[in-house]
Amino acid sequence: MNTVIMNNVNTSSCVFVIFGGTGDLAHRKLIPALYNLKYQDLLPSGFAIAAVGRKDKTDEEYRNEAYNSVKKYARFEISEDLWNDFCRRIFYKKLDFTRAEGYFGLNEFLSGIDSELQTEGNRVYYLATAPGNFEIIADNLHAANMAGNALKPWQRVVIEKPFGSSLASARQLNRKISDVFGEENVYRIDHYLGKEMVQSIMGLRFFNTLFEPLWSNKYIDNIQISSCETIGIENRGEYYEKTGALGDMVQNHMLQILALLAMEPPTSFNAEAIRDEKVKVLASIKEFTSGSVARNVVLGQYAEGEAGGRKIAGYRQERRVSPDSQTETFAALKIELDNPRWKGVPFYIRTGKRLAAKKTDIVIELKPSGAQVPNLIVIKIQPKEELFIRFNTKKPGIHGKICPVKMTYCQKCEICEAENNSPEAYEKLIIDVINGDQFLFTRWDGVEKSWSFIEKIKALKEEGKCSLSFYRPGTWGPEAAEHLPERDGRHWWNL
Amino acid sequence: MNTVIMNNVNTSSCVFVIFGGTGDLAHRKLIPALYNLKYQDLLPSGFAIAAVGRKDKTDEEYRNEAYNSVKKYARFEISEDLWNDFCRRIFYKKLDFTRAEGYFGLNEFLSGIDSELQTEGNRVYYLATAPGNFEIIADNLHAANMAGNALKPWQRVVIEKPFGSSLASARQLNRKISDVFGEENVYRIDHYLGKEMVQSIMGLRFFNTLFEPLWSNKYIDNIQISSCETIGIENRGEYYEKTGALGDMVQNHMLQILALLAMEPPTSFNAEAIRDEKVKVLASIKEFTSGSVARNVVLGQYAEGEAGGRKIAGYRQERRVSPDSQTETFAALKIELDNPRWKGVPFYIRTGKRLAAKKTDIVIELKPSGAQVPNLIVIKIQPKEELFIRFNTKKPGIHGKICPVKMTYCQKCEICEAENNSPEAYEKLIIDVINGDQFLFTRWDGVEKSWSFIEKIKALKEEGKCSLSFYRPGTWGPEAAEHLPERDGRHWWNL
Repeated sequence: MNTVIMNNVNTSSCVFVIFGGTGDLAHRKLIPALYNLKYQDLLPSGFAIAAVGRKDKTDEEYRNEAYNSVKKYARFEISEDLWNDFCRRIFYKKLDFTRAEGYFGLNEFLSGIDSELQTEGNRVYYLATAPGNFEIIADNLHAANMAGNALKPWQRVVIEKPFGSSLASARQLNRKISDVFGEENVYRIDHYLGKEMVQSIMGLRFFNTLFEPLWSNKYIDNIQISSCETIGIENRGEYYEKTGALGDMVQNHMLQILALLAMEPPTSFNAEAIRDEKVKVLASIKEFTSGSVARNVVLGQYAEGEAGGRKIAGYRQERRVSPDSQTETFAALKIELDNPRWKGVPFYIRTGKRLAAKKTDIVIELKPSGAQVPNLIVIKIQPKEELFIRFNTKKPGIHGKICPVKMTYCQKCEICEAENNSPEAYEKLIIDVINGDQFLFTRWDGVEKSWSFIEKIKALKEEGKCSLSFYRPGTWGPEAAEHLPERDGRHWWNL
Repeated sequence: MNTVIMNNVNTSSCVFVIFGGTGDLAHRKLIPALYNLKYQDLLPSGFAIAAVGRKDKTDEEYRNEAYNSVKKYARFEISEDLWNDFCRRIFYKKLDFTRAEGYFGLNEFLSGIDSELQTEGNRVYYLATAPGNFEIIADNLHAANMAGNALKPWQRVVIEKPFGSSLASARQLNRKISDVFGEENVYRIDHYLGKEMVQSIMGLRFFNTLFEPLWSNKYIDNIQISSCETIGIENRGEYYEKTGALGDMVQNHMLQILALLAMEPPTSFNAEAIRDEKVKVLASIKEFTSGSVARNVVLGQYAEGEAGGRKIAGYRQERRVSPDSQTETFAALKIELDNPRWKGVPFYIRTGKRLAAKKTDIVIELKPSGAQVPNLIVIKIQPKEELFIRFNTKKPGIHGKICPVKMTYCQKCEICEAENNSPEAYEKLIIDVINGDQFLFTRWDGVEKSWSFIEKIKALKEEGKCSLSFYRPGTWGPEAAEHLPERDGRHWWNL
């Protein structure tokens, strides 16, 4: 009776090569996720991890660091037997990524692992380095003849965001990467797509007669996607100055979620058919013009202020941020799609740092039935994972009053197999790379379309068509963001 | 923002006259419900209860008995102040219902209460006697000039089921009652209509964009209404031999629920507009013929057996039941409606004594979406009051499997005002009589249509077109009942 949305194909042995193996991402996310996969017996039989970094380090030393990372960040406890088998598959290789001559040594090193652990010459190259190194690594892998095969043995490359910092840089990077590997071997990570509740959107929409008929402008009034953070930019000033909220959140995560919510039913549930439909949504987004941008886009930057009795620095006071920075730390947009299903249905999206609450959620507001308050379908993505609908019913009691109430799907109560927390997004994404399933990864044409949408806004901002407002930490952003839906007689749902 | 489904009109002072004031119904249901209303401050300012019975009894004695009944059966505790004010409004009058001459004395007695308690001459006559007395009481009230006014002062009559034991007897009773009182003053109690979750059906259907568009043969596959009991007929052999499951449950409760589920949206939410639509549903039920009845109706009678290690008597062994009784204690029907909305959607209904579980519920099964298990909308009426939907979602975890899960509306968690349990059906129904709101009471044309549908089945049974099967206590009835949906590739949902 059950159906698998995504077909896992080509499960096969490989070496999982982490460029930037001593970095934060490797230790906080990748190694723990790989151990979680090991714990669930999901890794292929021939498997190894090769951490590649600039530092001097023995396998032994790296394994000890990996142990500490797993202990701290993995969701499963360390079992000694499992750890021993996992640990012996971890290797460290010192390499200066930027120098081509080291790659022949790397290749030999990996071939040695192949012989030892039956990894069959297959490679996942996970680029967990600073984005500035992506192109040179690709070049060097190419020069050493270590990339470009799709089959027997295969080489796949995983790239973390930001995939470029502008349309032009994304295009240049893409040309390089896809020349070297071929699009079918490029896995662009958008870790939001690996989150449980984001993954559940398609199932909800396409496998339920309860929801499928409602999914259009006939019954939906508007859709809101919010991704709000209470923290600031932490120590990422250098990165953030280049990307801003539009590049950091909207171009990728928010537009990807929008695409999942708005896509037409795919002809089949495989990666290409699904990504075709998602890209069609991105292509149907109405581009802003100098006439429309001011009404539909609100950009903001957090000023200094207070939260919880603590003084909070403004964005311009953060490290490695220009004191007259024009970078947005908040963006709210009213997006319209130019297609029959969604004609007249606004998609309000907003994201920002230093806001009133930490939450990522989707609110689908249905058109009201008579004089009643509207029904809502709410998908909470993080930190809580929850789905609920708000509907109207008779209040218990003698009076026949109708009032809105909540009906909640509690994932943990319902599904007994979910004894542990939901899997980390990275577990799902890593296993998909190993299995060769690109469904949860963004395809170049989609990336290009969303960059182009964002670039247009940035350009209009440069021209002064769209101003930047300041907002106090601990609020929901600039006041203008409230006006965005209010002008249409609507409001943001902060549920 | 809130809307009242039913308009409460004409709240006014009155004497609530209970014929059969010493009986079971009065003590277990009516007096406790009246006290619950008092507790909620819902009774009119001028109010009194006059219990009428054949026994010799002082007011004092009756008040003491009432106290015990409230203590035992009311859902609110006894508060001394409230009780004192409630108690002084209770009176007892000895009367032989069958003898006209006593009614003049009754009238004087009630007029005395009017002067004492400002009840303004208004009367609710609640006929809580054996049904055989209904006509003679009506006659005698008429002869004593105590009935027939709609306004200033008004007289309303409340009749308990069974409203007749056949179409002919129902017609005769109705002619008498409505001649005496006028249809606008006749309140035929179907206490299922007072139950919280039955009352909520209209709100669910008509005030929610989430559900309203789904409510037709386009998306609904079938609807099941079950009212199952584990007990036998207790000591009601005499009554049950005459009515059977068809007369006791199907003709009234089950068909009323069906009407609420299937009705078109009313032009307005007043009693007449709503009852017009409900009667239209009853009129659209396809009558069974000698050719169709055997395939669509299953009648059963419980045989002797065991349940929980205890020997259970068969129906024919019960007191006041004929040893070769042909009375059905179980009925399952496949009902079809002859209207555009429900063409092709079967309504499976079943009810019976000595079944596997005690439950009354409604299951709305939606057409499946692709290869998935179907979505369900489930309304649990008793003993649990619950609404839930079963839908499909991605199972948490690495594999993208789709599985069915439950989303539940927990009335008690959500609505803080509901500190106590839901009101008893009788509270709602009594206050509606006092307020002159007939919405939750059955109208004669509806009663007539449902009797006529049942009579046809009974006639076909007499002709041998529809046989009676025996079933073991503690089962779901005769095996043939399982075949009813199975023949259509469906099954009963025992959730």
